[in-house]
Amino acid sequence: MEDTQPNDPIAELITNYHELNSSIIDELDEEPSPLEFMRYVARNTPFVVRGGAADWQATRTWTVDYLKDFLGDELVNVAVTPAGNADAPTPYTSPDDGSTTLVLAKPHEEDQPFSTFLDYLTTPPTPTGAPPSTNKKETRYAQTQNDNLHHEYRALLTHVPATIPWARIALCRSPDAVNLWVGNGASVTALHRDSYENVYVQVAGRKHFVLVPPACQAGVAERALRSGVYVRAGDGGGGGDGDGDGEDREKGGEGLRLVLEEGVEPVPFATWDPDRPEVNATPYSRLVQPMRVTLEPGDMLYLPCLWYHKVSQSCSPEGVCIAVNYWYDMDFTGPLYPLSTFVRSVSNQRK
Amino acid sequence: MEDTQPNDPIAELITNYHELNSSIIDELDEEPSPLEFMRYVARNTPFVVRGGAADWQATRTWTVDYLKDFLGDELVNVAVTPAGNADAPTPYTSPDDGSTTLVLAKPHEEDQPFSTFLDYLTTPPTPTGAPPSTNKKETRYAQTQNDNLHHEYRALLTHVPATIPWARIALCRSPDAVNLWVGNGASVTALHRDSYENVYVQVAGRKHFVLVPPACQAGVAERALRSGVYVRAGDGGGGGDGDGDGEDREKGGEGLRLVLEEGVEPVPFATWDPDRPEVNATPYSRLVQPMRVTLEPGDMLYLPCLWYHKVSQSCSPEGVCIAVNYWYDMDFTGPLYPLSTFVRSVSNQRK
Ligand SMILES: O=C(O)CCC(=O)C(=O)O
Ligand SMILES: O=C(O)CCC(=O)C(=O)O
Repeated sequence: MEDTQPNDPIAELITNYHELNSSIIDELDEEPSPLEFMRYVARNTPFVVRGGAADWQATRTWTVDYLKDFLGDELVNVAVTPAGNADAPTPYTSPDDGSTTLVLAKPHEEDQPFSTFLDYLTTPPTPTGAPPSTNKKETRYAQTQNDNLHHEYRALLTHVPATIPWARIALCRSPDAVNLWVGNGASVTALHRDSYENVYVQVAGRKHFVLVPPACQAGVAERALRSGVYVRAGDGGGGGDGDGDGEDREKGGEGLRLVLEEGVEPVPFATWDPDRPEVNATPYSRLVQPMRVTLEPGDMLYLPCLWYHKVSQSCSPEGVCIAVNYWYDMDFTGPLYPLSTFVRSVSNQRK
Repeated sequence: MEDTQPNDPIAELITNYHELNSSIIDELDEEPSPLEFMRYVARNTPFVVRGGAADWQATRTWTVDYLKDFLGDELVNVAVTPAGNADAPTPYTSPDDGSTTLVLAKPHEEDQPFSTFLDYLTTPPTPTGAPPSTNKKETRYAQTQNDNLHHEYRALLTHVPATIPWARIALCRSPDAVNLWVGNGASVTALHRDSYENVYVQVAGRKHFVLVPPACQAGVAERALRSGVYVRAGDGGGGGDGDGDGEDREKGGEGLRLVLEEGVEPVPFATWDPDRPEVNATPYSRLVQPMRVTLEPGDMLYLPCLWYHKVSQSCSPEGVCIAVNYWYDMDFTGPLYPLSTFVRSVSNQRK
C-alpha cells in the first residue's frame, strides 16, 4: 500500500471533511420538521430518530405469525446466496485457469411462498448440539428494491405511511420506491451507494449501518467489476423446486455456484470493507472515519444521497430482521452530484 | 491558451454542472418561506425576489436629500480609487525595473462628512460641454464591509429589517454583518467570492451582478496576488484634507498612486473578468457560463456562499447607487466547503 503524498488534494479532502464534520451520528428524539430535515439535506448529513416509527402499525403488529396470517402463501421474490452476499464483491475462481478475481455477485432469485420463506429464515442454521461445520444452510433475503410494498407486499402497504411527511414536504416529491426488507442475521449488504435520499425504518430486529460520506470516495476502492450470478448447481439457474423445503435445504449454500455473466459491462463498485480495513485498501482508506449506527425497532435513519453504506443485521427474538425504506430521488441540480463525479474522476486518474 | 484534454476531470466538472443547472436565475414574485429558501441553500443556487423589498422604509425614503438631512456631517469611511477598482486585480508597474505585474489594489481609505461624500458622488465627472479628457475625477465608494449599519450608519439601521426573517429562520442565525453600499456608476467590484450566504437588497439605482458557481473555480484564473494600496500622491497615504472639496478633487484620479504593501502574503484572487473573457483566461474559462442579473430598486438577490460575483452599478436619477446586504455565515459542515477546496487544489496542480 503506497502512502499519500503531502499536498495530495484527495488526502486533504478527506481530512478536511472529517475535521469539519462529526463521525458520530446526530440523534433526534422526535421527527424533524420539513425545515429541520432540509437543513440535514443541505449538509448531506445523516441522523437517526430514535423511536420515530415506534407507533407505526408495522412496528406494533408485524410478528412472524401475523405476517404469515396476512400474506400466507403469496409468492415472493427471494435472493439466495451461499453466505448472505447478495450484490457483493466476491472472489470468483475461473474453471479454465484457476485464477481468482473479484466479481459483483448477484443472488440467485426465486419465488417462494412467503410463509415457507419465513419458516426457512427462522429455522436455526445448525441443529442444537450439532457441530457448526454441519451448517450447510444457504442465505435467503427478501430484498427486491423495486417499490415492492406497492407490488408483492401491497397487502401490507397500509401498515406503514405512504410517504414520510417531513421528507415529502421538504423534497417536494413522493417516494420513488417504498421497499420491504425481510432477512436474518446471515445477510449483509455490501458497501455501495445510491442516488436517493433514503429514510430507512427498522421494524423488527436490528440493522447495523456503517456509513462513509461521498467525500471519502477515494477510500472505498471502487473497481470496475464484472458481474456474476449464483445458479443452483446442476441447472441453468432455475433449480430447486423453490418451495424451500428439505430438498432445497439439503443442497444448501453448497448447492449454489457462481457463474460469470457474459456481455455485461463491468460496473464500478466499492471493494473496501470498513470492517476489514486492511483488505482492498487504497492509500486513502486509512483516512476514512466511517460513521456507525445501529437501528432498533422503531428507529428511523436519514441516509443522505451518495453516502456509501454497508448494512448487516441482527434478528428479533423470533429470528427475523424486518425494515421498510423510502427512496426519494436525489436532486441532481446544485453542486453535489457534479462534484462527487469529479472526486471519482480525479481518484480514478491517480490509480 | 492550451486546450483541455479529453477526460479532463475539471472540464467534465464544469460541463456537468452546467448541463444540470440553468444559467438563468430563478425569479420569485414574493419572498420565499424558510423552507423554500433552504431548498435553494441546499442546491447552492441563486434567486432574485423582484420587488421583495419595495416597501422597506429605506427603499421608500432614501433620497440624497433625505440621507443628507439624516446623517449630515457624520464622518464616514470612503474607499478612493482612480477608476473604481477597489480590491481589484490591477497592473502595477515597478518603479525599479519598469516591469508590470497584477496586484490586488486596495483603495485609499479616508473619512469624509457623509454629505460632502454624497455631493462628490452626484457631481458629474465632466462639466457639461467639457471634453471627456478633462475628467480627472477619482472614484469614491462607501463600501466598508464591517457591519457598517451597526456602526457608522447606525442612524439608518431602523430603516431596514434587522435580519431577513426567512434567512434567519432557515439558517438558524443572525447576520454576521449588515452593510450599506453607497456609490455611483464609476465603481465596479471585481470578481471574488465570500464564505457567506448573502441576501443583497437594492435600494436606489441598479446593480449588475455576474455570477459564477463554485464548480467553475478553474475558469476564474485564481492567482496569488501581492497586495498594493492607493496613496494620495505626495504623502504617505493620509493625504488630502479629506473633506472632498475642490482641493482634493483637483488631485483627482491622477493624484492616487499604487504602492506595493511589504510583508503581506500574496492571496489567491480571481483574475478572470467574465466581461473580458479572452483576458487572463484559463483553458477552462470558455466552458464557464456566467449567470447575469440586474437588480432594480426593491429587488433582493440570494447570492449563495462561495459563488464568484462581479458587481457593477448604474445610478438612480439622483446619481447614486445604494444597496444593503446581509451576510450570514456559511455552514462549513457538509461537503460543499471541503469539495470546493478540493476543486481549488486540483486546479492549482494543473496550472
Ligand atoms: O437493509 C439492507 O440490507 C440494505 C439497505 C440499503 O442498502 C438501502 O436502503 O439502500
Ligand atoms: O455591491 C458591491 O459592489 C459588491 C457586493 C459584494 O461583493 C457582496 O455583497 O459580497
